[in-house]
Amino acid sequence: MDKVKIENNAFVYPMPMVLAGAMVDNKPNFMAVGWVSRVNFTPPMIGISLGKAHYTNGGIHQNRAFSVNVPGMDLIEKVDYCGLVTGKTTDKSQIFDVFYGELKNAPLIRECPLCMECQLVQTVDMPSNTLFIGQILGAYTEERFLTGGKPDILKINPFTLTMPDNQYWAGGRNAGKAWGMGKNFKDAKP
Amino acid sequence: MDKVKIENNAFVYPMPMVLAGAMVDNKPNFMAVGWVSRVNFTPPMIGISLGKAHYTNGGIHQNRAFSVNVPGMDLIEKVDYCGLVTGKTTDKSQIFDVFYGELKNAPLIRECPLCMECQLVQTVDMPSNTLFIGQILGAYTEERFLTGGKPDILKINPFTLTMPDNQYWAGGRNAGKAWGMGKNFKDAKP
Repeated sequence: MDKVKIENNAFVYPMPMVLAGAMVDNKPNFMAVGWVSRVNFTPPMIGISLGKAHYTNGGIHQNRAFSVNVPGMDLIEKVDYCGLVTGKTTDKSQIFDVFYGELKNAPLIRECPLCMECQLVQTVDMPSNTLFIGQILGAYTEERFLTGGKPDILKINPFTLTMPDNQYWAGGRNAGKAWGMGKNFKDAKP
Repeated sequence: MDKVKIENNAFVYPMPMVLAGAMVDNKPNFMAVGWVSRVNFTPPMIGISLGKAHYTNGGIHQNRAFSVNVPGMDLIEKVDYCGLVTGKTTDKSQIFDVFYGELKNAPLIRECPLCMECQLVQTVDMPSNTLFIGQILGAYTEERFLTGGKPDILKINPFTLTMPDNQYWAGGRNAGKAWGMGKNFKDAKP
């Protein structure tokens, strides 16, 4: 098939959706983030890339701490709401039941199946965004989201984002073992 | 429900799976990557975080270019294979039909529904990983993967990764409009 060139503003499919939390003006604030990834293995670090105009950014710079919270499908409207309104004009501190781990300035969301508290270790300044890299100092879940001691995506029931069509996606089926099923291709090679 | 603390080596759910491409020792090489995210909006930039020991890294440093290719489910065994074997000892240049865009040192995979060629703009050195940030100079797909001129996840049919259980996931259903459905929560507020 022939390839066609599309606009350079392209994306990966799909993007995980999280709520990033920070203390801003002494109040918990949360924003919806799809540009998030683990960036270091040991020690565990995670990066979130936020447009520079966001209200959240000032709080992360000031406190050198933020949180990454993985919401389930039951929170999808609240998550989207957090992406629609800015903390500059709307108090988002009462939307969720907030708790804290070791860091007292990284607000975590009790309703989220998985919460990570992060100490800011580096900021990467880019043209329109700032990439905040944090070390995960604590991760919190509930027994009901675990299978064999590990978080289970089918129990977390998260949702994802696609851009530029701006759609959320949920569900899905197991498709096989990573670092495993490639052996079938390997074995099939001449 | 009571939260329980789990190990700090926690992840987002799920992670998009891509094949990162680079020229290494004058040959195309590809590796499976789940730690990938857009990191800048304008100009469009994408980041991939690779363990420092990977064979691919040297090629990206040397050529200042790499590619990000989004595979469909039909490629899952080949993708996993690329994650199982290193280019140090296994020639992966013949697994895919390779093509090039503007950059002649960012190998793209014709079998992948979406391919992005990236010029390296920054590297972030971390304890165990290097984050490579590239500007997307070209994005390529096929008409059959587009709906309304935009890539359609249902046509791309990608898969995702979860860690630390190391499983792939595919499929899923539309869950609503991003930057839209939050209005329901907003309107319901007292």
